[in-house]
Amino acid sequence: MKIDSIDFFYLRMPVVKDIGDGSQDALLVRVRAGEHTGWGECEASPLVSIAAYVCPMSHSACKPVRDSVLGESINSPADISQLAARVRANGLDIAQTAHTLSGIEIALWDLLGKARGEPVWRLLGYEKAYPKRPYASQLFGDTPAETFEKGRASRAAGFSAVKFGWGVYGTTTTTADCDQVAAAREGIGADADLLVDAGTIWGDDVKRAAARLDALEEFGARWLEEPFVSGALGAYRDLSARTRNVKLAAGEGAQDVHMATNLIEFGKIGYVQIDTGRIGGIGAAKTVADYAAAHGVMFVNHTFTTHLALSASLQPFVGVADAEICEYPVEASALATSLSKQKLNRSSDGFVSVPDAPGLGIEPDLDAIQKYLVDVEIQVDGKTLYRTPQVRS
Amino acid sequence: MKIDSIDFFYLRMPVVKDIGDGSQDALLVRVRAGEHTGWGECEASPLVSIAAYVCPMSHSACKPVRDSVLGESINSPADISQLAARVRANGLDIAQTAHTLSGIEIALWDLLGKARGEPVWRLLGYEKAYPKRPYASQLFGDTPAETFEKGRASRAAGFSAVKFGWGVYGTTTTTADCDQVAAAREGIGADADLLVDAGTIWGDDVKRAAARLDALEEFGARWLEEPFVSGALGAYRDLSARTRNVKLAAGEGAQDVHMATNLIEFGKIGYVQIDTGRIGGIGAAKTVADYAAAHGVMFVNHTFTTHLALSASLQPFVGVADAEICEYPVEASALATSLSKQKLNRSSDGFVSVPDAPGLGIEPDLDAIQKYLVDVEIQVDGKTLYRTPQVRS
Repeated sequence: MKIDSIDFFYLRMPVVKDIGDGSQDALLVRVRAGEHTGWGECEASPLVSIAAYVCPMSHSACKPVRDSVLGESINSPADISQLAARVRANGLDIAQTAHTLSGIEIALWDLLGKARGEPVWRLLGYEKAYPKRPYASQLFGDTPAETFEKGRASRAAGFSAVKFGWGVYGTTTTTADCDQVAAAREGIGADADLLVDAGTIWGDDVKRAAARLDALEEFGARWLEEPFVSGALGAYRDLSARTRNVKLAAGEGAQDVHMATNLIEFGKIGYVQIDTGRIGGIGAAKTVADYAAAHGVMFVNHTFTTHLALSASLQPFVGVADAEICEYPVEASALATSLSKQKLNRSSDGFVSVPDAPGLGIEPDLDAIQKYLVDVEIQVDGKTLYRTPQVRS
Repeated sequence: MKIDSIDFFYLRMPVVKDIGDGSQDALLVRVRAGEHTGWGECEASPLVSIAAYVCPMSHSACKPVRDSVLGESINSPADISQLAARVRANGLDIAQTAHTLSGIEIALWDLLGKARGEPVWRLLGYEKAYPKRPYASQLFGDTPAETFEKGRASRAAGFSAVKFGWGVYGTTTTTADCDQVAAAREGIGADADLLVDAGTIWGDDVKRAAARLDALEEFGARWLEEPFVSGALGAYRDLSARTRNVKLAAGEGAQDVHMATNLIEFGKIGYVQIDTGRIGGIGAAKTVADYAAAHGVMFVNHTFTTHLALSASLQPFVGVADAEICEYPVEASALATSLSKQKLNRSSDGFVSVPDAPGLGIEPDLDAIQKYLVDVEIQVDGKTLYRTPQVRS
């Protein structure tokens, strides 16, 4: 199958708030090859990622993603892998390349799965797709009381694992953070998994992060996520050496396989969290899942947006029985929740399964795309390099 | 001083060739505060970096660089450092943020230096600026004979250190690469420093890189640069353990301090090469220079373009006497060479010194900017987010 066209659709909520909710906009990718269509999604700034797709070449290692993909043939998983490697080499000096590549790569898997009548996870070599236990992923409340209520609501909604992140956590005192964690534990009850996400708030400051460990240990947090920025490997290693039962989790910032495996090999994290919409797609995420399994680290998806992104994020590790939990967005925007009619709903026992349908099994709703579509035009020297494409064409 | 305006100028040669010459385009940054003007340069894809400056906010950690800089006050080096940290935190989820920040940060140092009547290196705390021994930085010839000639010409031009990189090296056989290195050594003579740049050609494949070590040892290469991509820390460590006299050099891909210090701490490189136009500017590079000096690793600038970029790249380590060599572009495009009337020319003894003038000491020539200026317009929902600014305004 020859890649005939690639279209980027920038979607956005009418109002984008200054909060840690990454579902307020989206960058969808549609790839067409003959009669087949695949869909993917970048977890990225839409405008910047579109620019990386269309920008003029600067030199041999600074080329737009477009030049490495249009017209190429995709007939096997190996073809997708080789195409991704070419995009990386040709776009080495453009930092945004990985984010742009991610959505395209995901769409190619969807396309190949549809063409072969197979779900993506089977193309990845898995024989079975294990249902995952979802954790409710949400922001901390502004007050402990609010966090308590959110925790209680999550349990009432049937979740046995709950994550609180960002918001006020880490921004004021150790005592205030302890109160938040205590409220979270009280809200979800003694028997649920408590996960805490610091959202890189301490940069690479081990001391400030370590000051929060006692409370996390006391209230039985299973993991502390992203105390530091992704590259702070020494800080991860040092903090990891100071934990008792709490393990460190990180990896959502990984833009390639190395960034993720470095966190495991050098940073000594216990959970590696991969966003297929950032790391370069499903193939790169599967490589990390294999590496994690071989090194006794649990792979977890990172997903906070649509069910298309959720399906893409689950495929790389759905065949790993031991990796039993998954992130599950519960506070996504109207844009994200309405993007597809199909949903990866929880079953009656509370578990989440990937579709058994060809590809990713999630088809975007064209009316929803139209409703939230942002009109973008990029001109260079009088030539239009990008203009928002027609949804129905 | 309040930052009143920031302008990005995308410059480009009339023809951009598919070769490893990063000087074929440029992204200049002009910062104005009151009566002062500072200039900087991003080593980046111009269009993508402009997009990261103006893009709409996606969420609280995915904001355009513009939102973190316009209207801010800069009165000290600490202010620049704090501004850079804010840009990073607010743009955490935009991979291109560091590239866009770099040019702005450099311009802020230039601005502050001019306002205080001090060269940047003095603002960085250095009391003396040591002249550096420049190495001629150029591409391999297509044939060993051509490489030999280039080597001879570099010696005739007075260089005592010569680097060859990219081109055919690493793309075919070990024997062909050996012939290239032998020709390079023969061309430059026995008494000059030979440096070899593999341009990340082996990805993370230690075996293929190791197969080249014998020839590099035999012909006395001082370093092997970028055998792998920047994140392949384990591969750097493993190859490093197999060298005798050759040391590994890397770091130009570093987009933050951690990426560079990780190469030292975990990758065991012997030379860390920093491009101020990518790592986030002069402050981040100075942090790496301090770290390198404390860990017995030599800091070297990475620069292949204009003398504005060259001055910016030298400031962070010009006060370190032991870091005695510097990269010096000898094959830069007409755009790059004509960008400023002032040049960092080699002295009669072949050394290069930074200017003693306030700021970076290099003022772009407005006629040159006008000559190579690219017209760009970015519109989102009918609103113009960026339009190429007036050079004279």
